Formats: sequence, structure tokens, C-alpha cells
Amino acid sequence: MKIEDLIAQIHQKKSFLCVGLDTDLDKIPEHLLKEEDPIFAFNKAIIDATHPYCVAYKPNIAFYEAYGLEGWKSLERTMAYLNANHPEMFTIADAKRGDIGNTSTRYAKAFFETMDFDSITIAPYMGKDSVEPFLEFEGRHTILLALTSNQGAFDFQTKNVDGQELYKEVLSVSKTYKGAERLMYVVGATKASYLEDIREIVPESFLLVPGVGAQGGSLQEVCKYGITKDIGLLVNSSRGILYASTGLDFAETAAKKAQEIQQEMQIELSKIK
Amino acid sequence: MKIEDLIAQIHQKKSFLCVGLDTDLDKIPEHLLKEEDPIFAFNKAIIDATHPYCVAYKPNIAFYEAYGLEGWKSLERTMAYLNANHPEMFTIADAKRGDIGNTSTRYAKAFFETMDFDSITIAPYMGKDSVEPFLEFEGRHTILLALTSNQGAFDFQTKNVDGQELYKEVLSVSKTYKGAERLMYVVGATKASYLEDIREIVPESFLLVPGVGAQGGSLQEVCKYGITKDIGLLVNSSRGILYASTGLDFAETAAKKAQEIQQEMQIELSKIK
Repeated sequence: MKIEDLIAQIHQKKSFLCVGLDTDLDKIPEHLLKEEDPIFAFNKAIIDATHPYCVAYKPNIAFYEAYGLEGWKSLERTMAYLNANHPEMFTIADAKRGDIGNTSTRYAKAFFETMDFDSITIAPYMGKDSVEPFLEFEGRHTILLALTSNQGAFDFQTKNVDGQELYKEVLSVSKTYKGAERLMYVVGATKASYLEDIREIVPESFLLVPGVGAQGGSLQEVCKYGITKDIGLLVNSSRGILYASTGLDFAETAAKKAQEIQQEMQIELSKIK
Repeated sequence: MKIEDLIAQIHQKKSFLCVGLDTDLDKIPEHLLKEEDPIFAFNKAIIDATHPYCVAYKPNIAFYEAYGLEGWKSLERTMAYLNANHPEMFTIADAKRGDIGNTSTRYAKAFFETMDFDSITIAPYMGKDSVEPFLEFEGRHTILLALTSNQGAFDFQTKNVDGQELYKEVLSVSKTYKGAERLMYVVGATKASYLEDIREIVPESFLLVPGVGAQGGSLQEVCKYGITKDIGLLVNSSRGILYASTGLDFAETAAKKAQEIQQEMQIELSKIK
């Protein structure tokens, strides 16, 4: 997907919400467990209910991988359903992969070709030749971990490297990679004020922001420091939407939650000059 | 597997060789492509031929993931075969995973429980709460990326963080994690002299060393700086063994290559006092 198409969709839906499909058999409504593929049944219902209010879906690959072959089947079915019925949706494989050159190319093929994701999250630790193979794919996007929203982010990401924090070094250095125009970045919302500094380094890049809501970040704060004239933000919510109800009304309630966020986003979008 | 069992196996076989199962349909002998599961057929033949000369097998997960569901099936078959026929082998999922707490637990379950690997490689960027969930598993080992053997290693890993290189910071900080006694580290052999400094920080930890042979590292150099009284090294070779011949004699030739390395290792082991 071209970035212009994502931006157009955001303007049309007045939403930059990404719904994280962190589908967990221990948390989905019990009545779905009777289905042949409960994970897919849950995802399909969530997608059918929430798609008017969001522009992206982000399956966290660990949740599928944990169930072995069955989990991969559910993931492939979910992607096939999304691409057939909602081709306008920006899809993110939250995989946090990364390996040396040829091996990264294999991961890229798995997610961009075999499963037809629009984008994938990548860990930066192995540097240039672990990231660039993903950047070669036309019309696909690579979302590099910069500043994550977990406590462990302070172990290394915020440490000082040659005069600036490591996550800023990741932003600066990655801008020099071949195909850098296809880069986006993960920036945790629990540190919204950091976005001011981040925008100095990557003034226009799209940022994928997890951690709004359940993890305590504020949408207003994120927008205050992070929004650009072309929006430049995808804000993710997973549990807050997926598991808002675990009854028969789970999909309806998820849609209601997604719509609430969408309405807050509409206000923020209206402030862009 | 307990570390003592790995050490005992090394003494018994006089080898600390790990064979990397980077199985690539474009590189395996053509006659195997007729098999129902060519990847498994290749792996099985390689394992049957090389197991007397090595103590560990390391499938690189990207190679399997790239083939979608079929690839995962081949990986599961390979692991089932190894665990049934060669339970003494130390198995490494070269997955380079890492995510926030609960999500890391899911990856850990996928590899330690669903597929019954003895160990997994992990990226350190997200810090403590992304690594510790792996360390909770009794009898399993977590192999943290410290210094990798690719060019991109110089982007971040060797940069100075609070007075020492980032990879040293990763070694130092990770030693404080809960369950750190189950940590091992990836250290690329292309920088064997770095091992001297590394041994000051982690004098006894096992190091997984890729990049000997094809990528130019020297076994003698690696041992000179890295070997401990309990060995503390697993040296990996992938392509140099797997694709030494692409004819009907591929397995026999792979065994010959593995044996050559084992014989060099035997000499190095005899030098331990």
C-alpha cells in the first residue's frame, strides 16, 4: 500500500486507529471455543464490527506462533479475509524480526509475499544489513523499533550513545539506509513528551504508537507532540478493544470502544492546520 | 537440557560443533525435490550423517517461516525427529525473537513447549522484561544477541554507551536479570579478539559463535580467546557443511566436512588444562 492511500483513508474515516489482533484463547468469549477455528472466528467478528472506525490491523505474531501450526493457519486465514474483504486496510505484522542479510530477506518474503502484509515491525540491534532487505520491497513498509513502551526500554534504548540516546541514534542512523523512505517507527505512548525530540529527527515519518489507553498513554499528549500535517501517526489499541466484553456482545462492544477512540481522533484531526 | 549434559556430550564426542540447519530449497540436491517434504528429507539425511561429529543443531527459523505452513510443518517434523532419535542433541531455535512481557512468554511457549527446543536466540533491544520471560523455563536456555558477525553490527552494537560498547553493556546488564544462569550469548567469530574482553564480563557463559569458516573466522583464534575449562563454546557452521556437495553424496560429504571441523576441535579441546 502507498502511504498516500493510508493518508487518504485516515482523512475519509477520520481515524488513525490501529486495532491490535492479540488474540488469546484464554480471553475470547467462551462460546467461540466451539468453532472449528476459534481464533479466526474471533478475528473475523472483530474486523466485521470495527472496520469502519480504524485504518489498520496489527496481529501480534507471537499470539499465533504460540499455537503452532493451528495458530499459523488462523493467521493466514485472517490475512486472507482482510485482503479479500478490506483491501484498503493497512496491515501490520507485529513480528519484531531481524537477522543478517539473506535471512532477513526470507522473513520479508514470509510476511510481504506469502502472507501479503503491508508492513512488519523490525528490531534494529543488528543494524543496516538486517533492515535494508525489508526496505527493498516496493509498496511495503518497515516499522523499526525505536522507543518501546515497556519498562525494559530503559535498559538500553534510553542510554547515551555518542551524545544522544540509543533510540535517537537508531532514528538518525536508519535514515541513511537504502529505501529509508519506507521506514516507520514504533514509539511507545507512555513517553509522549519524547515525541517532541523524535519529530526533530524524523519530522514526517509515520509513527506506530502502542500503549494508549490500557498502558496509560494519553491520545491528546501523543497528538500534541507527534501529529504532522499528513497525520504521521497510527495509534494502536489491542486489549481495550478486543476484550471490552467477553459476552455474546463482544463484537458490538469492541465496535463501541473503537468508535469512542475514533471520535477522540476526529477532534485531534480537526486541529491540524 | 542441563548444561552439565551438554558439557558431558562435548567431552564424549570431542566436539563443540553446532550444525546450522539453514535449509534452502534453492540449494538442496535436486533429487530431493521429488520427496513429499524435501526440507525434512534433507534435514533428516544431514542429521543421520553428521550427528556423530556435532553436539547441537540450529534451525534458522526464517528459512522455514519463508515457506509458510509447509515450512512450519517441516520444522516441526525436524524437531520431532531430533527429539525422538537424538535426544542428547542440544537444539537451538535461531529465531531472534523478543517482545514485551506476556508476548515474550508466548514466543517462549511456542519454542520451548510446542516445539520442545532446548534454547532460543533473543534480541536484547527491548530489555529486561522482554528477556526474563524466556529465562523462567527450567532446563531451557536463552541465547542473547551480543555481538553479531554482520557488517551492521557496527551500526549500534559497538557504539559507546556510558563508557563501554553497547554489546558489553548488554552482557553486563543481562547478568542482573532473573534467571541469568540460563543465559548464553551470540558472539560472531569474525571478531575473535573481542572475545578476550567478553570473557572478562562473562567468564563462564556458553557462547554461540557463528561465522567460523565461510564467513572467515578462525577456530584457533576463537578458542584462544574464548574457551574455558568447561569449554563454554558452541561453534556453528551452516552452509559449509550443508551444501558442501549438491550431488547424491551430499550427506556423506556433509559428514566429512563436519568430521574435519570435529578433528580441529579435538585438538583445541586437548589444550584445555
